[in-house]
Amino acid sequence: MENLFTLLKEFEPEMISIRRYLHENPEISYHEVKTPAYIAEYHQKLGHEVRTGVGGRGVVATLRGGKPGQTVALRADFDALAIQEENDIPYKSKVDGAMHACGHDGHTATLLVLAKALNKIQDEIAGTIVFIHQFAEEIAPGGAISMIEDGCLEGVDVIFGTHIWSTFPVGTIQLKSGPIMAAADQFNIKIQGKGGHGSEPHLTKDAVMIGSQFVASAQQIVSRRVNPLHPAVVSVGHFEALNPFNVIADTATLIGTARTFDEEARDLIEKELENVLKSSCLLMDASYEYVYKRGYPPVVNHEAETAFIAETAKNIEEVQAVVECDPLMGGEDFAYYLQHVKGAFFFTGAMDPEWDVVYPHHHPRFNIDERSLLIAAKTLGSAAISFLEKESGQTQEQSITN
Amino acid sequence: MENLFTLLKEFEPEMISIRRYLHENPEISYHEVKTPAYIAEYHQKLGHEVRTGVGGRGVVATLRGGKPGQTVALRADFDALAIQEENDIPYKSKVDGAMHACGHDGHTATLLVLAKALNKIQDEIAGTIVFIHQFAEEIAPGGAISMIEDGCLEGVDVIFGTHIWSTFPVGTIQLKSGPIMAAADQFNIKIQGKGGHGSEPHLTKDAVMIGSQFVASAQQIVSRRVNPLHPAVVSVGHFEALNPFNVIADTATLIGTARTFDEEARDLIEKELENVLKSSCLLMDASYEYVYKRGYPPVVNHEAETAFIAETAKNIEEVQAVVECDPLMGGEDFAYYLQHVKGAFFFTGAMDPEWDVVYPHHHPRFNIDERSLLIAAKTLGSAAISFLEKESGQTQEQSITN
Amino acid sequence: MENLFTLLKEFEPEMISIRRYLHENPEISYHEVKTPAYIAEYHQKLGHEVRTGVGGRGVVATLRGGKPGQTVALRADFDALAIQEENDIPYKSKVDGAMHACGHDGHTATLLVLAKALNKIQDEIAGTIVFIHQFAEEIAPGGAISMIEDGCLEGVDVIFGTHIWSTFPVGTIQLKSGPIMAAADQFNIKIQGKGGHGSEPHLTKDAVMIGSQFVASAQQIVSRRVNPLHPAVVSVGHFEALNPFNVIADTATLIGTARTFDEEARDLIEKELENVLKSSCLLMDASYEYVYKRGYPPVVNHEAETAFIAETAKNIEEVQAVVECDPLMGGEDFAYYLQHVKGAFFFTGAMDPEWDVVYPHHHPRFNIDERSLLIAAKTLGSAAISFLEKESGQTQEQSITN
Amino acid sequence: MENLFTLLKEFEPEMISIRRYLHENPEISYHEVKTPAYIAEYHQKLGHEVRTGVGGRGVVATLRGGKPGQTVALRADFDALAIQEENDIPYKSKVDGAMHACGHDGHTATLLVLAKALNKIQDEIAGTIVFIHQFAEEIAPGGAISMIEDGCLEGVDVIFGTHIWSTFPVGTIQLKSGPIMAAADQFNIKIQGKGGHGSEPHLTKDAVMIGSQFVASAQQIVSRRVNPLHPAVVSVGHFEALNPFNVIADTATLIGTARTFDEEARDLIEKELENVLKSSCLLMDASYEYVYKRGYPPVVNHEAETAFIAETAKNIEEVQAVVECDPLMGGEDFAYYLQHVKGAFFFTGAMDPEWDVVYPHHHPRFNIDERSLLIAAKTLGSAAISFLEKESGQTQEQSITN
Repeated sequence: MENLFTLLKEFEPEMISIRRYLHENPEISYHEVKTPAYIAEYHQKLGHEVRTGVGGRGVVATLRGGKPGQTVALRADFDALAIQEENDIPYKSKVDGAMHACGHDGHTATLLVLAKALNKIQDEIAGTIVFIHQFAEEIAPGGAISMIEDGCLEGVDVIFGTHIWSTFPVGTIQLKSGPIMAAADQFNIKIQGKGGHGSEPHLTKDAVMIGSQFVASAQQIVSRRVNPLHPAVVSVGHFEALNPFNVIADTATLIGTARTFDEEARDLIEKELENVLKSSCLLMDASYEYVYKRGYPPVVNHEAETAFIAETAKNIEEVQAVVECDPLMGGEDFAYYLQHVKGAFFFTGAMDPEWDVVYPHHHPRFNIDERSLLIAAKTLGSAAISFLEKESGQTQEQSITN
Repeated sequence: MENLFTLLKEFEPEMISIRRYLHENPEISYHEVKTPAYIAEYHQKLGHEVRTGVGGRGVVATLRGGKPGQTVALRADFDALAIQEENDIPYKSKVDGAMHACGHDGHTATLLVLAKALNKIQDEIAGTIVFIHQFAEEIAPGGAISMIEDGCLEGVDVIFGTHIWSTFPVGTIQLKSGPIMAAADQFNIKIQGKGGHGSEPHLTKDAVMIGSQFVASAQQIVSRRVNPLHPAVVSVGHFEALNPFNVIADTATLIGTARTFDEEARDLIEKELENVLKSSCLLMDASYEYVYKRGYPPVVNHEAETAFIAETAKNIEEVQAVVECDPLMGGEDFAYYLQHVKGAFFFTGAMDPEWDVVYPHHHPRFNIDERSLLIAAKTLGSAAISFLEKESGQTQEQSITN
Repeated sequence: MENLFTLLKEFEPEMISIRRYLHENPEISYHEVKTPAYIAEYHQKLGHEVRTGVGGRGVVATLRGGKPGQTVALRADFDALAIQEENDIPYKSKVDGAMHACGHDGHTATLLVLAKALNKIQDEIAGTIVFIHQFAEEIAPGGAISMIEDGCLEGVDVIFGTHIWSTFPVGTIQLKSGPIMAAADQFNIKIQGKGGHGSEPHLTKDAVMIGSQFVASAQQIVSRRVNPLHPAVVSVGHFEALNPFNVIADTATLIGTARTFDEEARDLIEKELENVLKSSCLLMDASYEYVYKRGYPPVVNHEAETAFIAETAKNIEEVQAVVECDPLMGGEDFAYYLQHVKGAFFFTGAMDPEWDVVYPHHHPRFNIDERSLLIAAKTLGSAAISFLEKESGQTQEQSITN
Repeated sequence: MENLFTLLKEFEPEMISIRRYLHENPEISYHEVKTPAYIAEYHQKLGHEVRTGVGGRGVVATLRGGKPGQTVALRADFDALAIQEENDIPYKSKVDGAMHACGHDGHTATLLVLAKALNKIQDEIAGTIVFIHQFAEEIAPGGAISMIEDGCLEGVDVIFGTHIWSTFPVGTIQLKSGPIMAAADQFNIKIQGKGGHGSEPHLTKDAVMIGSQFVASAQQIVSRRVNPLHPAVVSVGHFEALNPFNVIADTATLIGTARTFDEEARDLIEKELENVLKSSCLLMDASYEYVYKRGYPPVVNHEAETAFIAETAKNIEEVQAVVECDPLMGGEDFAYYLQHVKGAFFFTGAMDPEWDVVYPHHHPRFNIDERSLLIAAKTLGSAAISFLEKESGQTQEQSITN
């Protein structure tokens, strides 16, 4: 392990350099071309088995250790967002309207350089390590489902993954057992009223009025209908009815998201949103279209593997604290991997305590404290090695006792 | 007069043809280029004095009768709306996002062909007829003010104008003395909340929510604050907050209109709108920008001239009824002309009784019964001729008695 | 006429004295016993034909003039309200919880003393005068319907009535042709939710929430559904859900009123109120009971008779102005008389200009300027006499010309 | 222990009989007179030391065991609610407007009969048992504070209490360590508008409208302002504006409750409620009075004692399952006892699985499966005995080892 840590420390500049290169060259979800090619080439040079186009645009590389054992998967996503970067940095995005505003550039750099370090100690590894480089995490259905369908978890015993997180202090590893990230669904609504002149409301079915009633009344879904012990959020972010001042809206389009941690609340919200919509339309005898698109399910960490990560992280020099965090209302398609194999997902703090302003993920000024890359690499790497050693040891013990 | 009516009947196909040509080629307010050129050319070919660029984009043509007398102005507006036509007709708008959805194409066709007919009987006309082709009626400040400032009413003794109206049956002329159209004001609102991730409403000031509350609460201005005997309308036609599904809105833009017939209600609404806005923003400690733009004043018909139009219309074969209508809540910058000279504004019914569905003005499926064009032309034309004859006669009588 | 005016001026102290006697002894609607007995006795002493118990508790007295002619009815109502008087006056109500807070005491005193004066000039009267003393004007269905069914309008050619009005200055007669008072309807709503503990909203159907949504959403009936040119009011005055702080309401009772001047708006409001109620209940799958009780129809003055009252009033010394008023949103069952015979209803100003505070009708401190009594008597009396003379004269003229 | 269980089983009919007697004779919080007298008499007959009027209306009885040891307190509350019972049962409440709609009748019957059984085995008890019969649990400040101040916990080493619960299946004991019941606060609001006639909203400040807006807008406190991971409830149970149908409300009184598990959310809700109120009043320039009364703090179970109850309950024949429940949003002043001595509060399931409809606590049709009484008695009783034995045994062990 000391060996691994020393190697990672040595390779830290390369990690930062790769991250910045990717940051300058973002590719948005489902449009990744150069990034997977870059990743594949990196692994190929290391001599790893590489499969490309996995589930579409994914890359899976495999490192077989010198000793027999189980198989650990480590996952990093590599897609960017359709956001125009507003940071003034030397490695600012060179692509108009695209930005690594969620840290996936860091995830990828971490995993590549970790693979290089693990490759150096290949002989000591008691099993197999699978590097899952996932495309399209940001937009449902996401890359995870199709990569799983395409076999990326075959033979895998456990999976670990991390998200570097700009609002958690660098030096912390944050995680919890059970639900750690929410189900993130989307709803699209079109209200079909009846347009007309702004001076004659009685001849119309005012779609702006109906939409506004919907938004106001939808508040009671969380406040009155959902069990208050079940965290839930319903937000409408998009309201579109772009008429001249003297025209009453014929239609209005509303788009929003619902977040939950359990299927009961999720089902209820899907049903109640339509109920509120029906109620609002009834006011003016209008009609509607309603689509509720289920996004990623909640990320539910397995208990033992979560405890394992927590223990592992405590032995890392740069980790000052392992924190049991609250679940986050955001979504992650890492959820799907955990439906197939055991494992855990954790946050690697990436907030520089000296920042004056902390920008959240998806903000045009989002950035990370790059010290987080080494910490993420050490945590994932030592978790993989420890897990394989532990399992291998148990097997040996079992052999002995048998 | 019989002569005029015969000519107009004969020219009816041209009237319809011009109207359809204009319908296919709409130009929205303040962007009229080809339309005024077309109008000017038409009058020039008739040999009328033509002044272009009046007050900006207006066209004023003058026909001097064979006999001395007073001066009558007839006005037609020619601008279109920023609406995408949804009619399935052979002469559908060829311009994306622009449509003659208020009948100004018909007004212009009527006035042009009426000018042609009057031109044929020029020798018999006892005075002067001024054809005011106005741009930009739909959007305040409107073309009337600047055309008046640019002299279009100079020497004019009386003015008449009409609006073809899709919800009044064809064959009716509808008008009233006193207020016939409302004060039409506009308000522009920008709500400045605080954006954020859709899953974290508590860290945001949700501008869509605030805007929706504003629209819902604004209903009580008319229902609770305005004297119920004072007609008033407040409508929000534009609601804009175009975020991705998982982003809570940082800002929302709302635009709407207020209609009243008296200054007391107008002042009250201006004040109460801000009050409701303040109340809605207070819910989340958000801020706002609020601009209330006073539009056209009410159109107030002069009593004698209104009676004159009513009498004149009764003598037209195609007019089955002259109706004293309720005032309309719409606004019209014809109001300004009536602040300078006496006159009257009336509605020419344009609803085909066989329609299954009647679409109001400004609707993407608005249309007119084209028989209304001939009726409008006959009413305006005979009013002009009769007025000049009456005045001329009186003068003669006065001469005699003196 | 001079004779009548002199007599009324002479009897003014009696008028005030009777009004004060009645004010001290109010009897609320449908419980009038002593008041009709007092009225009947007064007329009997004058030797008039008197019918009691008309339509229930009404009194009708008839004065036959010395000359043949038509028949005029004059109407005064005599019921009081279930209000505790808060005035500090020598003739304060002696009955707990009952008060003449609408001026019907004045109406009755006016009509009785006018009857006495007309009785003195009986020989000169060219026709018959019917004094309709009506019970129960304040509470629907009101006394008018049953008195009409019981024949109080038989043989009547025209009817006049007045309301003394505390917010119009004394010395003014205020009236208008057409609708002068509104249709005054009542709606009763019971929302049946599902009660429960205040901490478990998700297990309940919160009737307070539903009722509140109803009240808020009902604002859009007037603001969006009713033609803005048709005056309308919807008010909820009663909201009852009296639970302990930690109990979510099982039911809520709401009571309110709707005011309109035309049947179209009336029908629409009845329908739309249920629509809003249905919409609000739908939010929580609750149920409701809804009763819409039609009160009095609008009072619609006849044109000629309104003009006649206006002309008559101008000849009265104490009348400083005859004013064309706005219609009032209050209701009056005088409406029913005008559905059967021609006539007019007018307001007699009763506001003392020296008052610091003017209390509206139905207020516990309501009072009148008693000078209004003489003015009301003169106006009603001279209208009756003039009408009979005019009709008689026309008949004579007709006789002569024939 | 077997002895105790046999006795309790034998006394079960008396338990049910006492519960029904109390059910028929409810006394609402702070008005308990006969109930504490009945309790005191019961204990006195058993020969227990009894102190009455403790902290106001509480009763504390003490049973001293035959052997020395520690002191266990068992608590039952005995107040009823101001609810009109709607059950059709032979033992229906005989008191108009009062009902045992929360099961305190059962708590009291359980504790009394448990005291009788323990009394029978007095000699075997290794310590002292204190029976705390508490008044006024339903309404803050509650009886617990003043009973504690009056010494009811003096000498007590541990306290146990239970709530029979109509929505948990009979046969289950449900509990959790840490927060198990919420902070339960009350808010009282008076909106001061300006009354008037139902037909003249523009002259009023409609307090029913303002109150309704408040209730509707208050939904966004939980849905938008509170961290979605912090459970919170805001409910308005009382809305009072009792005017005639044609009167617009001068004032409206609203009363409600807020529930939270942490001080941050509690503070936020107190502040945001006033904000929403201010916003609603601003709509009509009305004023308000606002009082936020902090009620009971959260009930926070001690870890070891919670585990002890769980273990004890597993040994009871009738207990089919011991369940780790979610915390409940309801409040309980048992919270105060746990701030002074260690202990645990648990729920005894009282839902008959054959019920078609389950009515929640505080519902007019609330009822319990009476089999829960025996289970509650066995759990409390065996916990008390076991605790004393355990402590006694430890002391002995300690003695020996020393």
